[in-house]
Amino acid sequence: MALIDTLRNAFSGRLLTESSDMAAFLTDWRGKWTGMALAVAQPDGTEDVAAIIRWCRQNQVAVVPQGGNTGLCGGATPSAEGRSLVLSLTRMNRVRAIDTSNNTITVEAGLTLQRVQEAARDAGRLFPLSLAAEGSCTIGGNLATNAGGVQVLRYGNARELCLGLEVVTADGRIWHGLKGLRKDNTGYDLRNLFIGSEGSLGVITAATLKLFPLPTTRIAAFVALSSLEAALALLALAQHHLGDGLTAFELMSDTCIGLVEKHVASARFPLSERASWYALIELSSMDDETTAGELMQTMLAQAMESGEVTDATIAASIAQARALWALREDMSEAQAAEGKTIKHDISLPISAIPEFVTSTNRAVVERFALARMVVFGHLGDGNLHYNVSPPEGFGADSADAFVAQEAAINLFVHDEVARRGGSVSAEHGLGVLRRDEAARYRDPTADALMNTLKSALDPLNLMNPGKVL
Amino acid sequence: MALIDTLRNAFSGRLLTESSDMAAFLTDWRGKWTGMALAVAQPDGTEDVAAIIRWCRQNQVAVVPQGGNTGLCGGATPSAEGRSLVLSLTRMNRVRAIDTSNNTITVEAGLTLQRVQEAARDAGRLFPLSLAAEGSCTIGGNLATNAGGVQVLRYGNARELCLGLEVVTADGRIWHGLKGLRKDNTGYDLRNLFIGSEGSLGVITAATLKLFPLPTTRIAAFVALSSLEAALALLALAQHHLGDGLTAFELMSDTCIGLVEKHVASARFPLSERASWYALIELSSMDDETTAGELMQTMLAQAMESGEVTDATIAASIAQARALWALREDMSEAQAAEGKTIKHDISLPISAIPEFVTSTNRAVVERFALARMVVFGHLGDGNLHYNVSPPEGFGADSADAFVAQEAAINLFVHDEVARRGGSVSAEHGLGVLRRDEAARYRDPTADALMNTLKSALDPLNLMNPGKVL
Repeated sequence: MALIDTLRNAFSGRLLTESSDMAAFLTDWRGKWTGMALAVAQPDGTEDVAAIIRWCRQNQVAVVPQGGNTGLCGGATPSAEGRSLVLSLTRMNRVRAIDTSNNTITVEAGLTLQRVQEAARDAGRLFPLSLAAEGSCTIGGNLATNAGGVQVLRYGNARELCLGLEVVTADGRIWHGLKGLRKDNTGYDLRNLFIGSEGSLGVITAATLKLFPLPTTRIAAFVALSSLEAALALLALAQHHLGDGLTAFELMSDTCIGLVEKHVASARFPLSERASWYALIELSSMDDETTAGELMQTMLAQAMESGEVTDATIAASIAQARALWALREDMSEAQAAEGKTIKHDISLPISAIPEFVTSTNRAVVERFALARMVVFGHLGDGNLHYNVSPPEGFGADSADAFVAQEAAINLFVHDEVARRGGSVSAEHGLGVLRRDEAARYRDPTADALMNTLKSALDPLNLMNPGKVL
Repeated sequence: MALIDTLRNAFSGRLLTESSDMAAFLTDWRGKWTGMALAVAQPDGTEDVAAIIRWCRQNQVAVVPQGGNTGLCGGATPSAEGRSLVLSLTRMNRVRAIDTSNNTITVEAGLTLQRVQEAARDAGRLFPLSLAAEGSCTIGGNLATNAGGVQVLRYGNARELCLGLEVVTADGRIWHGLKGLRKDNTGYDLRNLFIGSEGSLGVITAATLKLFPLPTTRIAAFVALSSLEAALALLALAQHHLGDGLTAFELMSDTCIGLVEKHVASARFPLSERASWYALIELSSMDDETTAGELMQTMLAQAMESGEVTDATIAASIAQARALWALREDMSEAQAAEGKTIKHDISLPISAIPEFVTSTNRAVVERFALARMVVFGHLGDGNLHYNVSPPEGFGADSADAFVAQEAAINLFVHDEVARRGGSVSAEHGLGVLRRDEAARYRDPTADALMNTLKSALDPLNLMNPGKVL
């Protein structure tokens, strides 16, 4: 019997072997990485995943777990050498249980994030993880990469939203760890070890997640800042006044807004005057709209009086709030329309951000002839999308000259991040894109520990090899 | 040179070798466990800890890390055989840094929890971890056991409050992981692996912790519940009305309150009528007292109308709030005054609690002649202190007959917890007390994974051997 037929007989689900069927699974959505695979397996259930892993182990075939294939770092694309299996979890997409008294939902790894959000909302609850790819990305992928997004300030990353996991280990056994408990100290924290490990230690097949009360009111405000330092002061003021009601604090430079205005027809600048920096602030509340609106207004009035904010608008309708959020959410699209971008997904201690941005912006523009800074991000989490684009009017034909700077720009920016105690991968994971850079900045003891863990849990190095470490 | 002199020369700090000096470190504070040790080492700094661990490794001496020695499970007491070293972290008690813009504090492991809270408060911030032993326990011990306490509902366990760690590994190297970042996806989650591992994988020497805005107002209410099911309905109502302002939701039976009234002279029952169950609810807010008080009042009025609450009082002053909290906080003291108690620190899905308590209470009293149920806990976290005392009037001379039931009661209660998806150790850790019971209920794959991790990170089994696993 041919090797692939033994696999076909080993599990229940779908097995793709034709290159036309496999193509979509072998390239990331941005088209940056393309690999090869023996086949794409789409198991129906956890036992099937375990059977596939045992087959891979017997036959020394590497496993590349894949969810919605929306990753930004190539973590779900197989290598080019071809002796690997793509394990697509998308057929495992059931909501297994929802418990509104316990505020938990148990879902399979292949369910899209949006479906998880919807299932929560249908039960009168909030599942707060929220990010651009939510219509396509899967909760398994979100957990495997410890995804972030726009609500981390209040609710935490994917890691903080997960109470229990079901995992197939590298030796093809199932860990039944779907507990819905807020407190459980009965041994080492396996859950957090698998979360963020990008499939390199095992395969997450299901998760029990936290739900929250659904806020009744959301108030969005868009403000012009007097300086970058003022953004920090405003963040502190907002935290003091709004407490946990503060669910988003997004920072954007005027360059970013300009790009959105240029490329997104519906975009409207909502203030009467321009500034170098803006913030988008969201208050979520159980109060009615009037009370919540007044709270936001009082806070902003104080910020205008003390000079941090030079102009502000509060959305008066859902449509207006959407328009304000669109300025933030259309930023990736606008950047793509503008042309090539060199992206950095960094985090810093929040206190270090103004000095970092000011001095690094200046240095990058000085050192690299073809650079325009496109900086925005989740200030409340210390997470910046610190991007570098070619100058305006730069011809598409010279894109190569710009791209040729990429490695040098990455090194310069990441060195600046590292020496301020920051991270070179905040919310996108490592995959293959940031693997070597992460290793460059990693504490040597941490690096040794991680390699020890990998060798112990995946001694044959078959779980997503070449990723993370 | 004698073995112990080589140790004395290996580090800077204090070394105790006289049995009179060592005694306090060799017995837990409740006097349940007593062990032996070659010496007690109190290093001055992280490099000294590393030197001690390397010395232990060279000489095959086991290491028992210890903080404030306030644990409830014997996790910090050495074994009786005597070839181990107690590593007391209490001399490492500095605040290394505080960053109010980043809302972080970096402290050494031996600082008491209360000092961490005070340092935060001095900077106008809240460090929310709060538990009975806070004056003596150390933050290193809190992290090593993933401590819980009364604010977990809103702020999470010790685990959720920690951003970065400094750790000395089992081979005596230092992991410099004191990052103050909300987002960092640059490899496996070492932090959460060491948190909760009770010193069995390495020694936590310092931590970077999250700080929060200091609430301006705290409102406490004490309510009589119409039933145990009503407690859940009230919790949901409180979460909906108070949102993240709900910082505590403590459940107590009338038996518990009766014990406090009996043994604590200052205790006053604050309502006009008795009930079987009560809840203590805390609202923390940035609003003024009047606004916050009204919010609590509106919520309770609704709960009285719908019948969950039969009587309620809201503290009108700080003194009154303290008196309400004392009813909850004096419970351990009252139990101790009453005599022997068989304690269980369990957690359950919150939705399972009413049925669990009702049926298990009934069964325990039926099966074990000498049993009175003393049940209280952090309902918002699904965490119960599910304790069994002898019946009232039971003579102290018959204590042995009561204690003889302990193993059978533990087994019965924990079996009931386990079959409802609960945990037999919620916030106290495992130590030696719950080690074997935790193993009994652990998923076999999880057990294998944990043993693999232990062997990989501590191959000589010198880090707190016999604890956890």
